Amino acid sequence: MADIKIVETKALKTKPDVSKIGFGTHFTDYMFVMDYDVEHGWHDARIVPHEKISIDPANATLHYGQAIFEGLKAYRQGNKAVLFRAKDHLQRLNRSAKILDIPEIPFDVAHEGLLKLIDMDKDWIPTDKGQSLYVRPFVFATDEVLGVSVSKRYKFMIILSPVAAYYAHGFAPVKILVEDQYVRAVRGGLGAAKTPANYAASLHAGLVAHNIGFDQVLWLDGVERKYIEEVGSMNILFKINGEIVSPSPQIQTSILDGITRRTVNQIAKAWGVPVSERRISIDEVIAAHDDGRLEEVFGSGTAAVISPVGVLRYKGKDYVIGDGKIGPFAQKMYDFIEGLHVGEVPDTFGFIEVAGQY
Amino acid sequence: MADIKIVETKALKTKPDVSKIGFGTHFTDYMFVMDYDVEHGWHDARIVPHEKISIDPANATLHYGQAIFEGLKAYRQGNKAVLFRAKDHLQRLNRSAKILDIPEIPFDVAHEGLLKLIDMDKDWIPTDKGQSLYVRPFVFATDEVLGVSVSKRYKFMIILSPVAAYYAHGFAPVKILVEDQYVRAVRGGLGAAKTPANYAASLHAGLVAHNIGFDQVLWLDGVERKYIEEVGSMNILFKINGEIVSPSPQIQTSILDGITRRTVNQIAKAWGVPVSERRISIDEVIAAHDDGRLEEVFGSGTAAVISPVGVLRYKGKDYVIGDGKIGPFAQKMYDFIEGLHVGEVPDTFGFIEVAGQY
Repeated sequence: MADIKIVETKALKTKPDVSKIGFGTHFTDYMFVMDYDVEHGWHDARIVPHEKISIDPANATLHYGQAIFEGLKAYRQGNKAVLFRAKDHLQRLNRSAKILDIPEIPFDVAHEGLLKLIDMDKDWIPTDKGQSLYVRPFVFATDEVLGVSVSKRYKFMIILSPVAAYYAHGFAPVKILVEDQYVRAVRGGLGAAKTPANYAASLHAGLVAHNIGFDQVLWLDGVERKYIEEVGSMNILFKINGEIVSPSPQIQTSILDGITRRTVNQIAKAWGVPVSERRISIDEVIAAHDDGRLEEVFGSGTAAVISPVGVLRYKGKDYVIGDGKIGPFAQKMYDFIEGLHVGEVPDTFGFIEVAGQY
Repeated sequence: MADIKIVETKALKTKPDVSKIGFGTHFTDYMFVMDYDVEHGWHDARIVPHEKISIDPANATLHYGQAIFEGLKAYRQGNKAVLFRAKDHLQRLNRSAKILDIPEIPFDVAHEGLLKLIDMDKDWIPTDKGQSLYVRPFVFATDEVLGVSVSKRYKFMIILSPVAAYYAHGFAPVKILVEDQYVRAVRGGLGAAKTPANYAASLHAGLVAHNIGFDQVLWLDGVERKYIEEVGSMNILFKINGEIVSPSPQIQTSILDGITRRTVNQIAKAWGVPVSERRISIDEVIAAHDDGRLEEVFGSGTAAVISPVGVLRYKGKDYVIGDGKIGPFAQKMYDFIEGLHVGEVPDTFGFIEVAGQY
């Protein structure tokens, strides 16, 4: 057992009406914190009341962006508070750490701290289907020096936020703009890490797309502007002639190895649906659309789980997918994963981990 | 006159021995702060004691990196405290703001605040040649929401740090590793902005280079891995057959439009030295080296001013520039700019601005 200090809050907060709060706007009573310095390594693991933190204006993250994060979710399953693929997310956090030269987080301490935190805040997990408790582990540099270099000090935190159903008006397809001007990340860059730099690079393109009525952008590779990378802040999958095709993070090192994408592919395989992870170009997608083999397109990510795509716009032309309606595969996958979350579908995959009992 | 509130410090700090403190480790008594929200725009401009700031763990910059900064320097010229190209730096801050969708900073308020701040902290400007007061204006998103989007709130700050002479052991050439694996920024990305993302992307390559005895890396373009971009966190210039050649930020949109690079080119033109801003490949640099036309290589940036390059390593082979010694042009340029800084060279360019009187 890790040595995790607990500081009780003096007064529990009033819980908000989750159906009215959107994504990531309210935070629970507690947070997990751990510090790193060269002398002590990772130390002082603690769960304390969620509160503001004090940083120097010269804080290295504000200036040089050496930070990483994760996003996962907790759900209620009857009298149990559960996490979905928590270990996979913490492992990915450490892969991001390696890319950003952040010292490896001790997995057991982070994992135990996460379970304990969820247990302490379990009354914050919403009860309605589609709602969840969003979990944000993150690490940021805390040096207070303006020279550009790898920081010698870091803070690891986990904060929790109850979130409304992603589809406020029901599960529905989105419109996606294929981005041929802006680039999220390129081979040799930070694309495989969950790090602020990739999100900063996505903001302007996202805003431009929103302003012309699109929900997200679809990123193409930064070198040839040809191969599909990811969509907005999700991965993307195509159902072409019965097969689920998605870009491979092993081949394309500028995309994030999405855990929901892995979940989709694992479930599809279990269903006997052929799955292929490979390079796929926008031209191939359009050719498949034009000759009727493009059956479905959908995004995958922790926030939306599954996000069916109704329209792709590329170079000014709109390509309607499946008459702009939700595809049967995306619908079935969404229902299945949502079922796993709340325990209506038995977890034969080992995705669910119990963090607390009511 | 902008309405800038002043809060006096209760006790001035003890000033450190600048020769012993390196870069950006100590901060002055005061800082300039201004806030932005949608309702008030930029407001509450103030100069207050340099102190820690309180942020929420969900602060948008820690997670999504929507931030920008500048770096410039103040010097003593007899009984005057002066700034070097302050207006140019504040204008570039606003160009970075545009790329990151940060609301434009009111130039006059920022400029007046900067002059006033330097005046209040003028006793912190070091007196020895080569030393200076480093000025760091920066803006960061202050939304406390985990959804990925352009922030609705920001903080603009200017902090000041006395810095030792960059060349602790005298002006000397550096060894540069030509980076052919990692990429700082790519066409369509954030390379033209001074923003944390580009520095985060540079950390690992810089560390690898340091570990094998190199001072900095030379970035090549992310698409063809062929064209020179910048070196470490500076621009780079070549003297080839009597001409000063440097990559053009107008043509190559992934590099920072360096103000010291502009200074060098303006001065070179005034001296009658031919100047060319254009695309230049690593192959051209090596060919020029091999046939004896590569006379000098040097970096330019606010921190080092001029950084002569003694060795370039590319694909395992070392190319020694000018016998590994400081070139006469780099030396003359360094002396001239340093002379402008301290007032030994008359400023016919309009680079110097007086901020305070002793």
